[in-house]
Amino acid sequence: MGPETVSNVDPIDRAEAERDVTARVIDSFAATPDERFRFILQSLTEHLHAFVRDVRLTEAEWEKGIDFLTRVGQISDDRRQEFILLSDVLGLSMLTIGINHPVVAGATESTVFGPFFLEDAPRIALGGDISGGASGEPCWVSGRVTGIDGEPIAGARIEVWEADDEGHYDVQYEDERVAGRAHLFTGDQGEYRFWGLTPTPYPIPHDGPVGELLDHAHRTPMRASHLHFMVTAPDYGRLVTHIFVAGDPRLETDAVFGVKESLVKHFSPHTASEPTPDGRVVHTSWSDVVFDIVLSPER
Amino acid sequence: MGPETVSNVDPIDRAEAERDVTARVIDSFAATPDERFRFILQSLTEHLHAFVRDVRLTEAEWEKGIDFLTRVGQISDDRRQEFILLSDVLGLSMLTIGINHPVVAGATESTVFGPFFLEDAPRIALGGDISGGASGEPCWVSGRVTGIDGEPIAGARIEVWEADDEGHYDVQYEDERVAGRAHLFTGDQGEYRFWGLTPTPYPIPHDGPVGELLDHAHRTPMRASHLHFMVTAPDYGRLVTHIFVAGDPRLETDAVFGVKESLVKHFSPHTASEPTPDGRVVHTSWSDVVFDIVLSPER
Repeated sequence: MGPETVSNVDPIDRAEAERDVTARVIDSFAATPDERFRFILQSLTEHLHAFVRDVRLTEAEWEKGIDFLTRVGQISDDRRQEFILLSDVLGLSMLTIGINHPVVAGATESTVFGPFFLEDAPRIALGGDISGGASGEPCWVSGRVTGIDGEPIAGARIEVWEADDEGHYDVQYEDERVAGRAHLFTGDQGEYRFWGLTPTPYPIPHDGPVGELLDHAHRTPMRASHLHFMVTAPDYGRLVTHIFVAGDPRLETDAVFGVKESLVKHFSPHTASEPTPDGRVVHTSWSDVVFDIVLSPER
Repeated sequence: MGPETVSNVDPIDRAEAERDVTARVIDSFAATPDERFRFILQSLTEHLHAFVRDVRLTEAEWEKGIDFLTRVGQISDDRRQEFILLSDVLGLSMLTIGINHPVVAGATESTVFGPFFLEDAPRIALGGDISGGASGEPCWVSGRVTGIDGEPIAGARIEVWEADDEGHYDVQYEDERVAGRAHLFTGDQGEYRFWGLTPTPYPIPHDGPVGELLDHAHRTPMRASHLHFMVTAPDYGRLVTHIFVAGDPRLETDAVFGVKESLVKHFSPHTASEPTPDGRVVHTSWSDVVFDIVLSPER
């Protein structure tokens, strides 16, 4: 699939000349004082060169690559990070998370952090409401936080955040709203409960170069519907995860490869006339989901 | 060298989970309509994932990588292309050139094009001067352009360009000067000759993120001294190359891996009192070099 071969070119000499470039570059990093940095640079060289050799990259394709990466950098700013999106859609974010947070037997699995977390989200009491005026169907979320031996974890800090039913997080609006996010602490038995919104699907930002890439690849920019959690407690490993909605057709094609089967939960639908668990009066349909969280020991 | 391992993690499950992410990403590109683009995306995924797995990339390193690439994009503009520099110092430019312009037995070898070529450089006659006021020691450059069978190529177009002895190309100055570049055509017997400048070493732009990388790797930003050539003639392949100065201690550590042994030429030094080949009076020392150019057939 690469460029035409040329007569008078010895294929063995040619392969040797190509390997020689790679060897010289790897060697050029030999004096890097930081051993870890040296290891990373040399491995990166080896793998990027293998890619270029394997696809027989043309000069026109090389130019397109340079142009693409430049545009990814240039569209990024304080509110948008297109290289994170690129890492996400190439599965590099999920792979890095998997390497750094391997599945611990019995513990809740991790998934991508995403770009929409904020420090200092409001604190709510157990049973409080995170919506802060964000639009969407109310959803009663409850469960327990325990260790892998089943011991309840009292006072665990739970951060939750999600998009509204327009598909936007609060930070994506130009006003200064704080909505669809909060933190709370588990009770004595590790229990927690709050009102959120039934998650709805939304696209990752796709009006930039990463959106173009997905478009040319006939891939969807849509994420499967989800609710973000970050859970911390002394002596336990930090958990960054989502829960997903069972039955969502986008589970199979999540744009950032964030879905894990163990994180797909059943959200039960209820009509407006059904009584809510805490006696709150709602004038719309609502849902509820149970998510029991198991933290792994601190490393 | 990666993160600590965690108890309760099955290493076989772990390797499987990591491979599974890669497989899902590769599969996500299966519907890409352009077969070549699909092949490139899937190969890129395979190689980048192998890199992340091999080095056991930490989340902090991933963040540094995102930040580095973003800065490479953001420092680039109409006058500066930092992603090309990055490709150059990682040897990816030379590798791509090697793949697309393999060595043809008997023909002159290629090297990097670099960012400093300009269309529409002035035309000079045989024996003319390319310096246009650029500072440096005069250098008489001459030779013949032939095919691999030795037949002379009359009317071949030769573009030449080089830095002045301050280490700058004309386009790196803020004024609109055109200096140290020209084009000329070979005579009936394929012969050419012109006055240029004895090449001097200079650094690639190293005040940006690529300069930081070189610095952390204890690598020099200096290029070996060289003079650029691009030679074209009907029915022959375009040649993009340099000649380098024999004895230059930077030949071994050229920042962009552009040096090939066959392109290293002997520049003979002469005192001001020695007569020049064309009878021109120069008031300084001067040099001369012979560079016979052999073009490969058009592909």
